[in-house]
Amino acid sequence: MDQLVEKFLSGDRRALARIISRVENQTPEGRAYVRDLFPHSGRAHTIGVTGGAGSGKSTLTGALAAEYRRRGHTVGIVAVDPSSPFTQGAILGDRIRMQDLTLDPGVYVRSMASRGALGGLAPSIDDVVSIMDAFGFDYVLIETVGAGQDEVEIAGTALTTILVNNPGTGDDIQAMKAGIIEIADILVVNKADHPGADVLVSQLQALLSLAPAGSRRPPILKTTAIRGEGIAELADAVAGHRAGLEHSGELEQQRAADARHQVLAIARAILLERIRRATPEEELDGLVRRVAARELDPHTAAEELAAAAGQ
Amino acid sequence: MDQLVEKFLSGDRRALARIISRVENQTPEGRAYVRDLFPHSGRAHTIGVTGGAGSGKSTLTGALAAEYRRRGHTVGIVAVDPSSPFTQGAILGDRIRMQDLTLDPGVYVRSMASRGALGGLAPSIDDVVSIMDAFGFDYVLIETVGAGQDEVEIAGTALTTILVNNPGTGDDIQAMKAGIIEIADILVVNKADHPGADVLVSQLQALLSLAPAGSRRPPILKTTAIRGEGIAELADAVAGHRAGLEHSGELEQQRAADARHQVLAIARAILLERIRRATPEEELDGLVRRVAARELDPHTAAEELAAAAGQ
Repeated sequence: MDQLVEKFLSGDRRALARIISRVENQTPEGRAYVRDLFPHSGRAHTIGVTGGAGSGKSTLTGALAAEYRRRGHTVGIVAVDPSSPFTQGAILGDRIRMQDLTLDPGVYVRSMASRGALGGLAPSIDDVVSIMDAFGFDYVLIETVGAGQDEVEIAGTALTTILVNNPGTGDDIQAMKAGIIEIADILVVNKADHPGADVLVSQLQALLSLAPAGSRRPPILKTTAIRGEGIAELADAVAGHRAGLEHSGELEQQRAADARHQVLAIARAILLERIRRATPEEELDGLVRRVAARELDPHTAAEELAAAAGQ
Repeated sequence: MDQLVEKFLSGDRRALARIISRVENQTPEGRAYVRDLFPHSGRAHTIGVTGGAGSGKSTLTGALAAEYRRRGHTVGIVAVDPSSPFTQGAILGDRIRMQDLTLDPGVYVRSMASRGALGGLAPSIDDVVSIMDAFGFDYVLIETVGAGQDEVEIAGTALTTILVNNPGTGDDIQAMKAGIIEIADILVVNKADHPGADVLVSQLQALLSLAPAGSRRPPILKTTAIRGEGIAELADAVAGHRAGLEHSGELEQQRAADARHQVLAIARAILLERIRRATPEEELDGLVRRVAARELDPHTAAEELAAAAGQ
């Protein structure tokens, strides 16, 4: 067995860091680590924490991690940042707040780029979560910056998804959250000491009441993460969500759905790579130029590419 | 020639509506219409209007369409809604505001579902835009609800992308917009009569100043769309953006990049469909179950699927 894997399995955090770096870079070596360590994963409770910028979700993630530490559990945190160097300044604040947690040996924090806006969450994020899971953390918290696609994708990787809301962003919040509220297992109104928190709770309740009869209604919790208020209740709600899944037998179903999502995402990436290899760049350029000149429609061009990739 | 195509080319709006429905449903017949009509496209100026919920982008889209009408141009509007029936209530307001425009024969409005949150923008949205373009509209406005992936994807289909911002959403707005600001050709601060508009303009300027030297700096405009204020200036800025692209020779480059994006998206969809056909559902289920049980890692499973699809 690889010495690094051996160290990893004995709980060496430097081995963890090194393996994650290789996995993140998606090298063949990184893949091999995923293959070898994946069988050790599946025990962690993975929790997605998502919501708009400024919702305080970094603070909430940190507070939740601290609560798990108080309860005697270990915690891995994957913080997914927009990949652009343009955005580094804006998110620095969040990172700093996490630094005191990183001094705790029962907590491991890893920041990751989201790798290209067009690709959604990179498959390697799933892999990094699996690696943290295999390392033996009881909880793996995945925090995504931003909204929309990322928030939806994270639901494919986390067992429990927490959607962080904020009072005071106006009455249009329903519309913004409507598309993503369906993926939330728990709704949090953070900054609950700000005016408008109760109004927001009512609005979210009203929004949930629009859901088709028989659909699951996620609980709504109020927190003031910066003072640690409501965090124990949130940890209880997370445990309750998992217990509910186990009780109803949905846990296995959800694990299967997550695995399916992950496998298909990787298969798609493999096929795209196959297209790129099967069609020389200048040939692709030629096809694309004909489409841009409206001589060829994009479906016919795509069929040519797909045919070449299949040979 | 198909009678429907003939009617379409003679400007029959009912033929337009019928063809769009078939294209939207992605039937082989719909594909054939895209193939036949695509050579007629390429003349419209396509404009993406994107921004958070509550930013007033529907109102802005309507006001911009009205401005183009005043200038003697025709306008097609594609409004992309989240697909979930859960969200229908929330977006109804936006639709209603558009109804007076739909009575104008020089304007055609079409609402589309975004077809599954996980797939991003469906390839058929590009096709519907091409069909509207081929019909002869001078401008095709594409309005996306929501944030994140959708806003990024639309940059792949529109010649000019307008990002609508709002004052009063707090100082965290920079972080939220940072990831998507790069795709914007024009930044709009809508609801400019609200307090904080000038502060937001300064914040956006500061954010843009962080961009690497030599990168394009999109203009920042203030509008109060609900009263039509700043809309003529916005139309001028859109024209200026196109003129700049033509002047610098970037127009052809951008058209080629859009075509490449579109062709690769369709090729990926074709290959994914091929995976689904090559691997019987029960076999896929078996693979997925083994991944969920951690007996098999997702990369190995994905490679099996991709191998089957290539045979």
